[in-house]
Amino acid sequence: MHSEILKHSLYRMANPRSIAFFGASNNISSMGSNQLASLLALGFEGAIYPVHPKERRIQGLQAYQEVDDLPEVPDLAILVLPTKIVADILAACGRKGIRHAIVVSGGFREIGPEGLQREKQIAEVVHRYGMRLLGPNCIGIANPHHKFNCTFLEFEGQPGFVGMASQSGSFITQMFNLLARRGLGFSTAFSVGNEADVDLVDCLEYLGACPRTRVIALYIEGIRRGRAFVETARAVATRKPVVAFYVGGSETGQRAGLSHTGAMAGPDALYEGMFRQCGILRARSVTEMFDLCHALGALPAPGGRGVVIQTHSGGPGAAAADACGREGLQLPDLSSSTREALSRFVPLTSSLNNPVDLTYMKNPLDYFSSIPGRILQDPRTDMLLIYVLMPGQTIRRALKHMGLSEEEIQNQSAQLLEQQCRALAALLERFQKPVAGYTFRSLQDPFTRSLLEMGIPVFSDADRAARALRALHRYAEWQKAGNAAPPT
Amino acid sequence: MHSEILKHSLYRMANPRSIAFFGASNNISSMGSNQLASLLALGFEGAIYPVHPKERRIQGLQAYQEVDDLPEVPDLAILVLPTKIVADILAACGRKGIRHAIVVSGGFREIGPEGLQREKQIAEVVHRYGMRLLGPNCIGIANPHHKFNCTFLEFEGQPGFVGMASQSGSFITQMFNLLARRGLGFSTAFSVGNEADVDLVDCLEYLGACPRTRVIALYIEGIRRGRAFVETARAVATRKPVVAFYVGGSETGQRAGLSHTGAMAGPDALYEGMFRQCGILRARSVTEMFDLCHALGALPAPGGRGVVIQTHSGGPGAAAADACGREGLQLPDLSSSTREALSRFVPLTSSLNNPVDLTYMKNPLDYFSSIPGRILQDPRTDMLLIYVLMPGQTIRRALKHMGLSEEEIQNQSAQLLEQQCRALAALLERFQKPVAGYTFRSLQDPFTRSLLEMGIPVFSDADRAARALRALHRYAEWQKAGNAAPPT
Repeated sequence: MHSEILKHSLYRMANPRSIAFFGASNNISSMGSNQLASLLALGFEGAIYPVHPKERRIQGLQAYQEVDDLPEVPDLAILVLPTKIVADILAACGRKGIRHAIVVSGGFREIGPEGLQREKQIAEVVHRYGMRLLGPNCIGIANPHHKFNCTFLEFEGQPGFVGMASQSGSFITQMFNLLARRGLGFSTAFSVGNEADVDLVDCLEYLGACPRTRVIALYIEGIRRGRAFVETARAVATRKPVVAFYVGGSETGQRAGLSHTGAMAGPDALYEGMFRQCGILRARSVTEMFDLCHALGALPAPGGRGVVIQTHSGGPGAAAADACGREGLQLPDLSSSTREALSRFVPLTSSLNNPVDLTYMKNPLDYFSSIPGRILQDPRTDMLLIYVLMPGQTIRRALKHMGLSEEEIQNQSAQLLEQQCRALAALLERFQKPVAGYTFRSLQDPFTRSLLEMGIPVFSDADRAARALRALHRYAEWQKAGNAAPPT
Repeated sequence: MHSEILKHSLYRMANPRSIAFFGASNNISSMGSNQLASLLALGFEGAIYPVHPKERRIQGLQAYQEVDDLPEVPDLAILVLPTKIVADILAACGRKGIRHAIVVSGGFREIGPEGLQREKQIAEVVHRYGMRLLGPNCIGIANPHHKFNCTFLEFEGQPGFVGMASQSGSFITQMFNLLARRGLGFSTAFSVGNEADVDLVDCLEYLGACPRTRVIALYIEGIRRGRAFVETARAVATRKPVVAFYVGGSETGQRAGLSHTGAMAGPDALYEGMFRQCGILRARSVTEMFDLCHALGALPAPGGRGVVIQTHSGGPGAAAADACGREGLQLPDLSSSTREALSRFVPLTSSLNNPVDLTYMKNPLDYFSSIPGRILQDPRTDMLLIYVLMPGQTIRRALKHMGLSEEEIQNQSAQLLEQQCRALAALLERFQKPVAGYTFRSLQDPFTRSLLEMGIPVFSDADRAARALRALHRYAEWQKAGNAAPPT
């Protein structure tokens, strides 16, 4: 770990060695009990101290009646308690010496004046004891690298490189499955809730320093500290890409956000200008936010806007060409030496324009190795976008044609598919140029799944791939221009 | 079947009783052999006559040396032959009395002047014998209702209500899987190829008359008969919705299309104007084309633009509200009587504004029955959009809380989930107002899958749902206005 992050005031909140847990019981239908259950399910390796007025054992752990009874001062307190007692328990934690707290309980600013008053009380406690507090009205943190997930849904998938700070807890928990299906995962994700103390800006700063975070996703309903946000985001974006999905822009979105976290949204143009100023890439949906994160986190910076499309199907090629065109990317012609070299690998019906359309696969084994290798070697190729259909079926068919038995076909085709994925991943490594795929089949098809696991993003439509590659290019341009030109 | 379609010149091409198949052998690696294999795999019930100069049996069928040897005049000839012999074999088919042919072979207009000359020759043969010809350079037709699929990929999923005419064969074959994953299927899909005779306009006209087709998808790289297209599309669109994905608009898309089918694309604005004039809804990607088809084919026409969003998660609710706002849909407030009625079913933390945000599920069994029922009853609700997370888990948790055994939980939860899906489908039926869902989980999650199968569209993000509902509203408005106001 870099020393910078070790000193960050959120470090022990996101990487606690020990936790006092308030509000869990053996009744698994309550929110707090579910949260403790998620924490246990991921195999958290530190000490967990459930605190409960009556129970002696909770979910197999020794429970304590009061925070004062704990055998040590834990790094973090998690409170999932009735609103009215939150301030008192938080103060008891402060007195004990606990310096980080997550308050999950709702009933504060988001419900109106009375709640705002209560929120001020807990802010005062935090200030008194020099604590950092996440929430209230949040669902906490997921840091799967540390086996730490205190949200109410069990973590799915693997730890990854996407950092997130979100004004909606759902966009943490309900993304576990979405990210896992794409071969992605969170590095650390914060649900900020009402931001009584720790806010989006703090989390952004932390994720900027976090060496496991390669790209940062922000879900924004409204920003409270505008100037601090701009300064922090700008500094972070020079080091790693930041993608934002902002929903307060439309009137209807504003109303929805207001009743959700009580954050005031601004006009869309204001936020748009702020994002540009900071070098933040703006996504127009949750799906697109993670599409952009995928490309930006997995791929190197392209040298220019030239995309070569490789396909064996005309329609998907044309759709990709059109999408790239609409996104302001270019489709360079390949050099004559590249075309000559490629002609060895492709059937007569193929087109060596861009899209490179093989029309069908002469030898399916060239499709992810020799052909893309030769395309990437061409200096005119800045990025490569490959259509992925069903290489498994094509390879099995080719082996059958060679007269192999069913068993040999099974073994060989699994091996060949693995080889193909490795070959493509090696090309990405060797040429340091972005390589991405697109498909209309499920991302869980074995070959696509394997590409995803080897670090090659595959998108579920050509236009999604094009928008992700465009963001990659915009961000690279912004970095090259000394962060002067707006990236969106 | 309506009599109109029985008289259509494409009827026996899409519903052949018997087929002469040229170009299939026992070598399964060839295109023609694969196409025959797909035809057999779907269980085509008519007679198939493979024609082959040497083989006596092909894929288990008796083969014939020449078309003249066939024991009857088949409804359709499918030719997957070397380019040079296509015209002669086609003429032999004409002499035999065959009146419908699909030419899969390439090497015609799409390869330049020499190919164009060959294409003129086959057009002349077609004219001479009064035939209808699909192709050349196409992959044929999939009509799963008739167990007829002569494309080179096996059909997946179920017959459905989406009719398609496509200038790319891939957007037929490679959509089988995509549609199946959404619980959709083709009614009949045509790959038109080079359109030497049958073109998009003919197919559109046929699909307009086809009673199994509820919505029509068009993949367009360039339209040859502009006036006929406008007249036909306008007439068809008054009866059923037509959705188009046009890729010739950008310069790069144009170049790609030109080398694909040799069709000349026009400037984007020209096509945009034409689509508006005809009442065609334009999609900006393949994914969106089928999103729109899903809503338009499955849902009734809404009475207005008012969408009520039902969620138990704030972020997804705000994202949906924002997306609806951006698409020009409205979020009406519910009437006070609806809010009062709903208050029985929801927890205190919930918001009865729009989005109706339950914050959590008090009783998960209300979520797809009592709550949406009460919302749909409100005259202010034109459409209902429901967030779908993991009702299975919620219900299992509730049952566990009631003290049921693991086995009882399994049985009961499966039953309850089924009930829930039926309840929602019954509401759609009863109120005749559009009901759709959105989720960030896989569409293959059991509950979502079940909703899809009962005819409730579920989309993979809020913005996709909003765009589909907007298309539904636009089309309804266009129909109400006597097809006067442009729908896109």
